[in-house]
This record gives sequence, structure tokens and C-alpha cells, in this order.
Amino acid sequence: MVDGRMTRLAKLHATGNDFLVSTVPLTGADAVALCDRHTGVGADGLLILEPGRDGADATMTLYNADGSLAEMSGNGARCLAWVARRDGMGTAERLVVDTGGGRRTLELTCDETGVLTYAVCDMGAVTVEATGLLAEAGAVSFEGDAASIGNPHWVMIVADPAPLDLPTVGPALEHDARFPDRVNVEFIAPAGLDAISMRVWERGVGETRSCGTGACAAAAVAHRRGLVGADVIVHVPGGTLTVGLGDTVRLGGPVVHVFDVDVDVDLGARHA
Amino acid sequence: MVDGRMTRLAKLHATGNDFLVSTVPLTGADAVALCDRHTGVGADGLLILEPGRDGADATMTLYNADGSLAEMSGNGARCLAWVARRDGMGTAERLVVDTGGGRRTLELTCDETGVLTYAVCDMGAVTVEATGLLAEAGAVSFEGDAASIGNPHWVMIVADPAPLDLPTVGPALEHDARFPDRVNVEFIAPAGLDAISMRVWERGVGETRSCGTGACAAAAVAHRRGLVGADVIVHVPGGTLTVGLGDTVRLGGPVVHVFDVDVDVDLGARHA
Repeated sequence: MVDGRMTRLAKLHATGNDFLVSTVPLTGADAVALCDRHTGVGADGLLILEPGRDGADATMTLYNADGSLAEMSGNGARCLAWVARRDGMGTAERLVVDTGGGRRTLELTCDETGVLTYAVCDMGAVTVEATGLLAEAGAVSFEGDAASIGNPHWVMIVADPAPLDLPTVGPALEHDARFPDRVNVEFIAPAGLDAISMRVWERGVGETRSCGTGACAAAAVAHRRGLVGADVIVHVPGGTLTVGLGDTVRLGGPVVHVFDVDVDVDLGARHA
Repeated sequence: MVDGRMTRLAKLHATGNDFLVSTVPLTGADAVALCDRHTGVGADGLLILEPGRDGADATMTLYNADGSLAEMSGNGARCLAWVARRDGMGTAERLVVDTGGGRRTLELTCDETGVLTYAVCDMGAVTVEATGLLAEAGAVSFEGDAASIGNPHWVMIVADPAPLDLPTVGPALEHDARFPDRVNVEFIAPAGLDAISMRVWERGVGETRSCGTGACAAAAVAHRRGLVGADVIVHVPGGTLTVGLGDTVRLGGPVVHVFDVDVDVDLGARHA
């Protein structure tokens, strides 16, 4: 066995969007090894939680599973908050985190034992950039609005997202020529008072169970079209999110701690 | 938080085919929750390791990630052997395991500290059932032999598996009308003396990094066609396996212990 570097990681998920959290610095190469779902621990991303500076409670660095750095993830920040709370950062109600996308404030709800169960993350502004864009994919016609919340989204209004063949439809829309940097695509339908159901095709990833920025973009589009009010329930395959619209958008939802694990960061060196 | 049942699991992988091993009995529903890669621990399957009876060192029960019972997995048995060895079952050279597919003997190689690093599993007989079957998929012509090792395989001889578009080709071949129960499809090419390279499309799963029965079927077909001798090296995306052909087929390869984890089996009840 190769000598390794043992580290403790927490694994959490926020509506099925799952992250590893480390309180010691790790690299993009470590993220690739650790996020591998077959030979590593497995996750959508690796978060590094470090003490905050200049008034922030914590600092968050986010690596995607491919080892690249990401600026921000609402679901990731909500998972990070669980570990920050356990480690005594911030208060039981509030955590201020510096991310690659700027300073963010999370509002926390903890249970009677002090464990975080629900977190709302300040996501910044959503801007709707184009409306009524038409497209055809997989012999189905779509109509939707383009919105940006740091990353680009195309929110399609459909009768029912459930039966859509996303493996066919998703790639075609993701690579639409009107989005030269490609685009995340949400498929939404009204689902009761101030609620929508949503499936999401993430740029470069495929269908996922949840997407925080996608939920925010979808809620903003649905609100602009008069389908919902300013406080929106978004049902995604991985659970239920809430989006509060305003000058800044607030993304809320449950956070579940799955396990802690002591693992050899150099396990990649032992892959056969 | 819902009160849960804490249990300790080991996570291992054999050429990228990954399993959880529990030494306490669990159910198919537990397997579904634990094998979920986003909200659980994540694995291709859950193995229950229990003491052996009637001369066997151990008993293996295998649940697929969907909660169904599987009879046997060569890579699974090799992962189980790692934990059995740590728990003092069998000897450092040999483990006899009763599986749903019958009694199997594993030959073990341990390092100087007694940790298992390589295991060879007796897989039973491979029978080649039809040769020279032709097919066309994704505008590519294929030719291969059908073989059975408990489950059905169609081993295609190709110039190079690497560039094949398996997401297109795989489903078409898996559902070929000549295989009413569908079929696992291997794409193989010679890769040096007594060696082949292989990619595999598993029935009901998709492309995987490794498939023990697929490697055995591929080696038997390659041998029958005179491409290799009776001791075959099979390079798969997840690593390298060895197959020894004879009345019974012996599947060998490395086993890597990734981590142990204490986890709440009822975490499924906490999914949001």
C-alpha cells in the first residue's frame, strides 16, 4: 500500500446535490480522486471550509468533480453551512461565507440539539435576459425565457416535465447556437399555488436531481410570467426547494448529513 | 432527526466495480438507500458477509443497487474476501464462500501486513453458444459470439473498442431480438500477447468500468478464436483483470479498500 494522507471528510446532500466537505486544504487533483463515485468517496463536488476573515464566519472553496474551481453553488454553500455550524462558526441563525462568487449570508434553522436542518442562501440577483425563445428538440416544441444568475439558464414552460425525454432533448437545447457558452435548461410547470415542478439539464453534466441556480432562475421566470408570487416552492426530483424573489434571491432547502469518513486522500495512487 | 440504525460498512472496489460490505443482515430496501450515490453511501451493490456453514468460511448475500437479489458477482466476491480476510475468516491463501450461485473458492494474495491485495475467484464454466452473429448498430457493423456464464453475453470482435459510441451502440445490441432476455455486450480487441482490451455495456445498467463475467466470456471467446492462450489479461477501463480458462474459469484482479464508514441505515427516512 502506498503511504497516504488520511483526512476526515463530511458527506452531505441538499436535495440530492451531494458534496464532500474538508476543513483542511486539498487540491483539484484530490477532488478528482475523492469525488470519483466508484473508486473514491463520491460527490458532485468538494468544498474546502476554512475560517473566515474580515468579518466573514467562513471561507468556502469549491472544486467540481472534474477538479476545476467553481465560483459558487447555493446547494454547496448550504451543505458547507452544516459543517460550519457543527464546528461552531457563525451563530445558530446566521453564517456569513466568503465564496469565489463573493460574500454570501445564510440563514440557518437548527433542531433542538443544534444540528442544522434547513438553510437559506443569499444567491444574488437573477436577470431575465430574453423571453419567448422558441426551439425544437426531439420532435417537441419548446418555448422559454433566458435568465442569468452568474451562470446561464433557459427556462422552458411545459405542460408536464415528468414525461420529457431529457437525454434526447437536453443535449440539443444545451448546445443551441443562441447560447455560445452552452446553457443550463430547466423544464417547469405550475404545481399548485405558488409552486412549480422542475426538471433540470445541467450544462456539461446532464440531468441532475437538483440545481440551486436553476431553481432560482425558474422561480424568477415563473414569477415574471404571473404563474407564482414572490415566494416560490420548487419541486425537483431530489426534494423541495424554496425561492424568495427580490433584489437578491434566497434559496432555501433541507440539508442532510450522510456520514463522516476518514479516507486516504492518496487513494488515487492505489487505483488498480 | 429520525432515530436510525447505525451500522459499519466497508466500501471497496475491484477495477472500479464498487461494493459496500456489511457484516450485519440488511434488506433490499436498505440496499436501495445505501447504494444511492447522491443521498446514500453509493455503490454498485451491497454485500452481506456472514459466517460460513458446512465447511464454507463465509456466506455472501448480494443485493443490487435497485434492491433486487443477485446470485453472484466475481468482482463482488473478491471485494467481500477483503473484509472476510480482515475478520479472520478462511486463511491468508484461501476463502470458501457460499453464494446464491453456489459454493466458490477464492485464492488470495495478501501483503506483508496481511491485507488482501489480489483475489482470484472461481467463476464456474463459460459456454460459447453461438458464433459469428452479425449485427448493425449506430451505422457500424459488428460480428461476435454469444457466451453464457450464468448470465448472457455477446462478445464483439472489433478493431479498437476505444472510439466506439457505446451510448448509441449499446442499447441497440442489448435489445437485439435474438436475445429475448437482453444481453450484456463486450467489445474486445487483441492488445498484445495473450491480452485483450475490452469495453462493456451491461444489460440494464449501461457502460461500466469493469464486469467480471464479461471479462470471462470475452476471454473464452478470444481463446476459442485463437487470439489468446488459456491465461488471458483483460484490460478494462477500471484496470486489469486476469482470466484463467479451463473447466472452471478463474477471474483475478486487485481489490482496493476505500474506506469504512459508520452510517445510519435509515438515512433514507431523512431524504428531503
